[in-house]
Amino acid sequence: MASAEIDTLIQALSRLPGLGPRSARRAVLHLIKKRETAMAPLLRALEAVNEKLSTCSICGNIDTTDPCGVCSDPRRDGSSLCVVEEVADLWALDRSRLFPGKYHVLGGRLSALDGVRPEDLTIDRLVRRIEAGGVDEIVLAMNATLEGQTTAHYVADRLEAFPVRVTQLAHGLPVGGELDYLDEGTLAQALRARRPIG
Amino acid sequence: MASAEIDTLIQALSRLPGLGPRSARRAVLHLIKKRETAMAPLLRALEAVNEKLSTCSICGNIDTTDPCGVCSDPRRDGSSLCVVEEVADLWALDRSRLFPGKYHVLGGRLSALDGVRPEDLTIDRLVRRIEAGGVDEIVLAMNATLEGQTTAHYVADRLEAFPVRVTQLAHGLPVGGELDYLDEGTLAQALRARRPIG
Repeated sequence: MASAEIDTLIQALSRLPGLGPRSARRAVLHLIKKRETAMAPLLRALEAVNEKLSTCSICGNIDTTDPCGVCSDPRRDGSSLCVVEEVADLWALDRSRLFPGKYHVLGGRLSALDGVRPEDLTIDRLVRRIEAGGVDEIVLAMNATLEGQTTAHYVADRLEAFPVRVTQLAHGLPVGGELDYLDEGTLAQALRARRPIG
Repeated sequence: MASAEIDTLIQALSRLPGLGPRSARRAVLHLIKKRETAMAPLLRALEAVNEKLSTCSICGNIDTTDPCGVCSDPRRDGSSLCVVEEVADLWALDRSRLFPGKYHVLGGRLSALDGVRPEDLTIDRLVRRIEAGGVDEIVLAMNATLEGQTTAHYVADRLEAFPVRVTQLAHGLPVGGELDYLDEGTLAQALRARRPIG
């Protein structure tokens, strides 16, 4: 039905997470119909990002500048570093605007299954950032998964020798969580980490 | 968090049907991480389509050539024309590979509510295609909606004067449809159009 070019575009879009062949086709039809208001802006935005994209040489964030917008922001407190697994985690945390410090992206998590070893992550670079001075606190913000927590403990061990406070995100009931619907693991965590009230 | 360029790209993607802000962000992260295997192909495909896109001057299909791939396909039977509302309908029908003829895209449906009149659709152009000769059958493939059916009847009336067979898609139970779950309108159609079995 459609020409090779349109098919190629549908295929390229359908490989994005969250889009399948059907929704990619709908998206392409939309782009085709709204050529000036949808296709042209998307093309320009994609060109701009593709041209400038780089990995921040300090924290590992991906941005159109190096150092990235977070690292070069003078209003941020560089004495506090939040260590995350992936760039997506950095973005998620930063959207909440709750953390006023800077970040460090490990680039993954330790995994025997996937063959990810400590030297595959940017742990050495994190150590060098701390050795360079000026860092007081490290907040470990790994995912609450087995591999995430293994990674958090490994990083904590590596940082033991340095005069920095190492904390990690609290685990427990999520906001709005109903006990009846939560898994046992979460309940166990919440119970183990119980705190005095008020 | 992200630079202005990345934000612009997320916004452009989030305006596609089927993608919201959250999935657009995930898609952009994916593009950014897989720069060579995801972003570059998408950019090239978008450029190619954007450069060549045109509306077929014969049938109204959108393609990268004019006449479109369907109209210029010599294996297709030009004596049979399937009339559809939108380009998306043409694509949907043609994916099924069930119709061996060519198409005519009306560019919408008659609608008092939206102020779409017969002269806003390509009905005159359809009449001229029939007047030019070589067309034996017109298959009306409008949506089974009130406006779609109004449009079908209007087009059928306009074509009455010509020596062409005018048919329309059958209405009734969809394949796999269970009576218990079907709406009354569909049941009424199926009952009214009942046919001898075997």
